Amino acid sequence: MEKVIRVGLLGAGTVGSGVIQVLEMNRRQITERVGAQIQLKTVLVRNLAKKRPQLEGYVLTDNIDDIVKDEEIDVVVELMGGLEPAREYMLKAMEHGKSVVTANKDVVAQFGKEMFAMAEKHDVDFMFEASVGGGIPIITPLKQCLTANKITEIMGIVNGTTNYMLTKMTECGSDYDEVLKEAQAKGYAEANPSADVDGLDAARKAAILASLAFNTRVELKDVSVEGITKITPDDIEYARNLGYVVKLLAVGKDSPEHGVDVRVHPVFLPKEHPLAAVNGVFNAIFVRGNAIGEAMFYGQGAGSLPTASAVVADIIDVSRDIVNDTFGRVRCTCYEQKRLCPLEETESSYYVRLLVDDKPGVLGLIATAFGDAGVSLKSVIQTQRNIVDHAEIVAITHAVRHASIQAALQELKGMPVVDEIRNVIRVEKEQV
Amino acid sequence: MEKVIRVGLLGAGTVGSGVIQVLEMNRRQITERVGAQIQLKTVLVRNLAKKRPQLEGYVLTDNIDDIVKDEEIDVVVELMGGLEPAREYMLKAMEHGKSVVTANKDVVAQFGKEMFAMAEKHDVDFMFEASVGGGIPIITPLKQCLTANKITEIMGIVNGTTNYMLTKMTECGSDYDEVLKEAQAKGYAEANPSADVDGLDAARKAAILASLAFNTRVELKDVSVEGITKITPDDIEYARNLGYVVKLLAVGKDSPEHGVDVRVHPVFLPKEHPLAAVNGVFNAIFVRGNAIGEAMFYGQGAGSLPTASAVVADIIDVSRDIVNDTFGRVRCTCYEQKRLCPLEETESSYYVRLLVDDKPGVLGLIATAFGDAGVSLKSVIQTQRNIVDHAEIVAITHAVRHASIQAALQELKGMPVVDEIRNVIRVEKEQV
Ligand SMILES: NC(=O)c1ccc[n+]([C@@H]2O[C@H](COP(=O)([O-])OP(=O)(O)OC[C@H]3O[C@@H](n4cnc5c(N)ncnc54)[C@H](OP(=O)(O)O)[C@@H]3O)[C@@H](O)[C@H]2O)c1
Ligand SMILES: NC(=O)c1ccc[n+]([C@@H]2O[C@H](COP(=O)([O-])OP(=O)(O)OC[C@H]3O[C@@H](n4cnc5c(N)ncnc54)[C@H](OP(=O)(O)O)[C@@H]3O)[C@@H](O)[C@H]2O)c1
Repeated sequence: MEKVIRVGLLGAGTVGSGVIQVLEMNRRQITERVGAQIQLKTVLVRNLAKKRPQLEGYVLTDNIDDIVKDEEIDVVVELMGGLEPAREYMLKAMEHGKSVVTANKDVVAQFGKEMFAMAEKHDVDFMFEASVGGGIPIITPLKQCLTANKITEIMGIVNGTTNYMLTKMTECGSDYDEVLKEAQAKGYAEANPSADVDGLDAARKAAILASLAFNTRVELKDVSVEGITKITPDDIEYARNLGYVVKLLAVGKDSPEHGVDVRVHPVFLPKEHPLAAVNGVFNAIFVRGNAIGEAMFYGQGAGSLPTASAVVADIIDVSRDIVNDTFGRVRCTCYEQKRLCPLEETESSYYVRLLVDDKPGVLGLIATAFGDAGVSLKSVIQTQRNIVDHAEIVAITHAVRHASIQAALQELKGMPVVDEIRNVIRVEKEQV
Repeated sequence: MEKVIRVGLLGAGTVGSGVIQVLEMNRRQITERVGAQIQLKTVLVRNLAKKRPQLEGYVLTDNIDDIVKDEEIDVVVELMGGLEPAREYMLKAMEHGKSVVTANKDVVAQFGKEMFAMAEKHDVDFMFEASVGGGIPIITPLKQCLTANKITEIMGIVNGTTNYMLTKMTECGSDYDEVLKEAQAKGYAEANPSADVDGLDAARKAAILASLAFNTRVELKDVSVEGITKITPDDIEYARNLGYVVKLLAVGKDSPEHGVDVRVHPVFLPKEHPLAAVNGVFNAIFVRGNAIGEAMFYGQGAGSLPTASAVVADIIDVSRDIVNDTFGRVRCTCYEQKRLCPLEETESSYYVRLLVDDKPGVLGLIATAFGDAGVSLKSVIQTQRNIVDHAEIVAITHAVRHASIQAALQELKGMPVVDEIRNVIRVEKEQV
């Protein structure tokens, strides 16, 4: 008789319902592929009184012990979100010998170390493919397919809300507030959009990706973060004219000189870069390794069924381990302790847009100020833009230290001809 | 003491040398990641007398028995290429209880069934990630990450040579013979380019991808193939004006009505399609599943180190199985026997380019001929193109059966006003 693997589900919201749907609609395939039946047994809900037609036939409970202490249950799938009680419930499940699958980037980015230690202690699996990039396979590729590589760089469009907004701003020339309203109307952005637009959601994913790519623990607090709220249609137009698109990127770099450098911020990306064509709510993660060269993984970064695709893939992976009586086949990837590069030491090119007095000689003054601060310029242009008595100057710098650009900006701020530093955005260099 | 896993390598050419290099340069990482040392022990070469500085320190042999009968060797890596003796040697290795890793698309596409049966019989792994898409992870994603999905479509740019040629034709307007010479000069195309330009190489990969995606055995002989030799700069220009790019695609579709339909041919691809931006020698595979929606995997489809990245990932995967004393964790994926859709039943839109007499009423005659054959048109345009007394007509059809378009072409051929059917190319429909 076929083995049956029983699942307890914590939370049946957007993703949880998707998981139930995928397990049902692809039941026959999944059974063949695993060599065992995967059966959802019990679902934890907050309010037992609420009508949930999609949960008919399953045991419902509002008591976590009914799942973690159920000896029949092999796998606990956490899809409630948030730090607590999600963290506590997952730890409990592992203590009771159950493998855990989650989509919870908050817990993984902040308490990953604790989770992996607990999994190791109790000989169970802890899987989190859906925590980054929704349905896109990226965690398994990093743990398996790319594992022959030393990875030097990982760059991702990992937040669909902000990518949708930037795409709309690019395509329609609309301004930030307009596209935010539109994104909210379409359900892509929350009423309080801060986690998305301020970059916090992307930062959690950056921490997870960097930990896996560079084999050293990177936590949310280690990621420097800047959101998209200051991006204007003018910046996007300058970018276009200079051959770039503006994207919010999660960036991780690892080099012998600087150590591990992880950040989230808007970037001018050369329009030939593979990530530049990733538009709307789509996500993609670009990886550079010392054997594979460049690779990219593209797909839907959110949504009920796409995210469930990743969660159920993890459930299948765990089930295969159970069928084959093996655990922890892939060891914890953070076997090193690398130096984290402080923000001031990071290097980048920058786009700097200034509002200046429209007088002869200003361009020269500005260029000299950059030079005095040790920042060499790749290009500098001055435009009129219908502003009485004023002009805009847009400078693109060569790669400089964060500290140097800060010094230059300090200098510029003090100059009488400079009326405003309108924006400062990092520029990703062309591929070679 | 750390476990040591010993590898025998068959063939140290482009990819084999890459494997040796990757194992050396990333030795420390790999050992950490596997929890065991991976040691290359013996290399099979054809000519022992040849100088091979990169093989210093390894045992060389020209006798396969020195590898397959060596009890110390756990994994045999086949990188000789071709059908025989590669097939024979891999079977022998498995008979002797060794897991096999290969990049050999020829053997997998033609003798996959035999290989998997042998692996199952002897409780060993048979891995072939590098056989499709070079370094790009696609086999593991199909076997693991996407396994919660019913996959309905897979489309790939899986031949770098032809993609390089089509990209050059698109960017520079050069003609076929010119870009072929250029590709040969750069080492991207062989002296005899047939396997690439006639689509055979892509067809092998199509068979492998379809077998994994649709869970039914598809072999090389089941794939209908058409190459790029008839593509002209004119076709590419018409494509551009109509909003398409021309790509050579490996296409697999699975539907309840038609069954499994696998082919390789040039395609007019809407320029918004994620595959449309894949240029030069890069490869990418696009997958559609009933949970994940669309996903794409992008990277370098060939080359010594990128391909070695995939081969070594497989070696690591096998080694993890050995360390954990498990085998065949992922079962053979071909557990179904689906109907293969005959070419005549396949459905597609088509681009048809005709040379016709330049007289009033011709456009009407042509349109009527299509209609009479049951082919409805989406658009039809007539151009002069500086051809005395002649004009060109370009028609784009709605989706029709292959048999219907053949009937229409037969009809057109017989018409006195039609001087030549210049090209017929499938058109991929826009994404919704
Ligand atoms: N949505 C996506 O596209 C997506 C993509 C990738 C990752 N994720 C991650 O997936 C997780 C779930 O997201 P979601 O979008 O599915 O959220 P959601 O729609 O808000 O669903 C969460 C569910 O968990 C339930 N829940 C919360 N706290 C609970 C508790 N203490 N006890 C019992 N049930 C509880 C909620 O019940 P009530 O209905 O009673 O509040 C709700 O049904 C999050 O970690 C999220 O970051 C989501
Ligand atoms: N090159 C790529 O980018 C790439 C990408 C994906 C997959 N692959 C696949 O990888 C495999 C190897 O390709 P490759 O490009 O590395 O080919 P290659 O450069 O021609 O190397 C093949 C090597 O195998 C040796 N060999 C052939 N037959 C042998 C025999 N009977 N006994 C001992 N040694 C033998 C050859 O030795 P001699 O030097 O004596 O002839 C040569 O060194 C092929 O299956 C290919 O399809 C290649």
